[in-house]
Amino acid sequence: MTPGTAEKRWIAGVDLGGTNIVVGLIPIEGGEVIGLRTQPTDATRGAKYVVDRMVAMVEEAICDVTSSHGTTRDAVAGVGIGSPGPLDRKTGTVINTPNLGWRNFPLRDLLSNALRLPATLDNDANCATYGEWWLGAGRGTQTLVGLTLGTGIGGGIVLNGEIFHGCSDVAGEIGHMTIDSNGRRCKCGNYGCLEQYASGPAIATRAMEGLEAGSPSLLIDMVGGKLEDITAAIVYEASVSGDPYANEVMKDTAKFLGAGVASIINILNPEMVVIAGGVTRAGEHLFEPLRAEVRKRAFRSAQECCRIVSGQLPGTAGVVGAAAVFKKENYGHV
Amino acid sequence: MTPGTAEKRWIAGVDLGGTNIVVGLIPIEGGEVIGLRTQPTDATRGAKYVVDRMVAMVEEAICDVTSSHGTTRDAVAGVGIGSPGPLDRKTGTVINTPNLGWRNFPLRDLLSNALRLPATLDNDANCATYGEWWLGAGRGTQTLVGLTLGTGIGGGIVLNGEIFHGCSDVAGEIGHMTIDSNGRRCKCGNYGCLEQYASGPAIATRAMEGLEAGSPSLLIDMVGGKLEDITAAIVYEASVSGDPYANEVMKDTAKFLGAGVASIINILNPEMVVIAGGVTRAGEHLFEPLRAEVRKRAFRSAQECCRIVSGQLPGTAGVVGAAAVFKKENYGHV
Repeated sequence: MTPGTAEKRWIAGVDLGGTNIVVGLIPIEGGEVIGLRTQPTDATRGAKYVVDRMVAMVEEAICDVTSSHGTTRDAVAGVGIGSPGPLDRKTGTVINTPNLGWRNFPLRDLLSNALRLPATLDNDANCATYGEWWLGAGRGTQTLVGLTLGTGIGGGIVLNGEIFHGCSDVAGEIGHMTIDSNGRRCKCGNYGCLEQYASGPAIATRAMEGLEAGSPSLLIDMVGGKLEDITAAIVYEASVSGDPYANEVMKDTAKFLGAGVASIINILNPEMVVIAGGVTRAGEHLFEPLRAEVRKRAFRSAQECCRIVSGQLPGTAGVVGAAAVFKKENYGHV
Repeated sequence: MTPGTAEKRWIAGVDLGGTNIVVGLIPIEGGEVIGLRTQPTDATRGAKYVVDRMVAMVEEAICDVTSSHGTTRDAVAGVGIGSPGPLDRKTGTVINTPNLGWRNFPLRDLLSNALRLPATLDNDANCATYGEWWLGAGRGTQTLVGLTLGTGIGGGIVLNGEIFHGCSDVAGEIGHMTIDSNGRRCKCGNYGCLEQYASGPAIATRAMEGLEAGSPSLLIDMVGGKLEDITAAIVYEASVSGDPYANEVMKDTAKFLGAGVASIINILNPEMVVIAGGVTRAGEHLFEPLRAEVRKRAFRSAQECCRIVSGQLPGTAGVVGAAAVFKKENYGHV
């Protein structure tokens, strides 16, 4: 095919995280992610290093896919990038990311110029939610709220098939909704943010606090007595193994999360709340008490039309959603 | 003019509350409410009585206005009704209003048939917010959140110039956002709802609790020692008169409200939060500490683009907004 005239078949998605960069190609009409690759971000090596790494990963993914499909680079329509925020979508600039140490960083144009491809930039948590909406748990819904439980709690809101950004691209910061106005101090400056109770580190901290207070548990052996080594993943493993204390910690997590999700349901009345992230591997150990808590708290007519489900795209929701943002902005629909 | 051919010049707005019914006519292109009247709801006299009363009030308002403007009843395009919910907008049915004792009540069609005018139905708090957006504090904004502090806390969300209803017309129940997950029990069944801290009765309760615990205050004399007679209005009067204890109660109110408003700002990133209701007559005694609390809690880039202001349509926001809903549904724009 002549360069520049090839039918556009794929969009590259880039999910930039504090720990890893994930890249893949998604068929424009939707489908499986191909050419998927993950590499450490290594942010300490500087912004140029990270950008070069992202560019190389996209080029490699494109090579893989186009060669195996017998087509050329021109079949790639462009690149959607998901990045930690806050950011300015119009200028494609990352305003500030404590994890990467960037300020007013023109990420979109740097990638676009290096790759000679059009690019879009959106918040990583928005992208993860949009990915689940496009090709994951939320397919076919109109109004969906996504939460990703990780180092923090990322959130995104999809209304009528579009990411809702608010007036300065901050909308969807559901992890920073106060569930206890006099509660734990959050690194955002607020008190009692949901993130301080149900993120991975928050779960580990709560587990540790109880053990220090003398609760018996499998957990102590699992970390060889070094309580500071407890992670949310270890808590959910102990919970799945039937440890009553770990189960208690998961139930408390579900209660805090349930208070937050019930508020979201009363405020936004969505069709679906999708919860993703490592902790959701606890499955019904988390979701059953979570749904019970929401039933106790939310308006009946709101909870009756809302499904609370686990994400279906672990590891790739961000890449898929970043590509969906590119598609939406360039094609007007997803 | 020949009946049926008159130019449509006004929309009737009806604001049905647990205490009062307010009715008025609003020029289709916007402007002052005319023919405004308020009467007690007297819900205990039964649904038929209330509906007949509403019909009579609309007819009276129409007569007043058309006769004084030398035109006929045909100049009225229709009626917008705001009612407590939950309700089903499509069928025009009030599903359940504890204050009025109605269940599955076809309010819209009863009024429409009796008045021989097309009608629309929406939630009272949505209408109040939409009224402020159309002709009040929120003119010209795209994204606005409204809170009405009264017997409860009503909420409404306007996104891109439309009321956001969610998937079952429940969206906007901001008064039932949890700000303290283990907090005061709310009559909705949830715990720690904002309404339990910043509604009129909640303010009065908090004031009473402190006085019972021995705090000295002007308030005690203002109610002749009968603490159960304290209302939010009396607290704000005492606060405006410089009573330190009443001021403390208003500041606490601002703190609770600030926690809720900060969450809303982090979640929806609106251009404006409009706060209405009797308590806002406390003016800067409420708004100054409220804004300070939000500054401490919300994301900077979200709060920087959000004005927190008092409603500009006290007593008529609901009527104006009900008419705006009619206009939106029948003309496609407001």
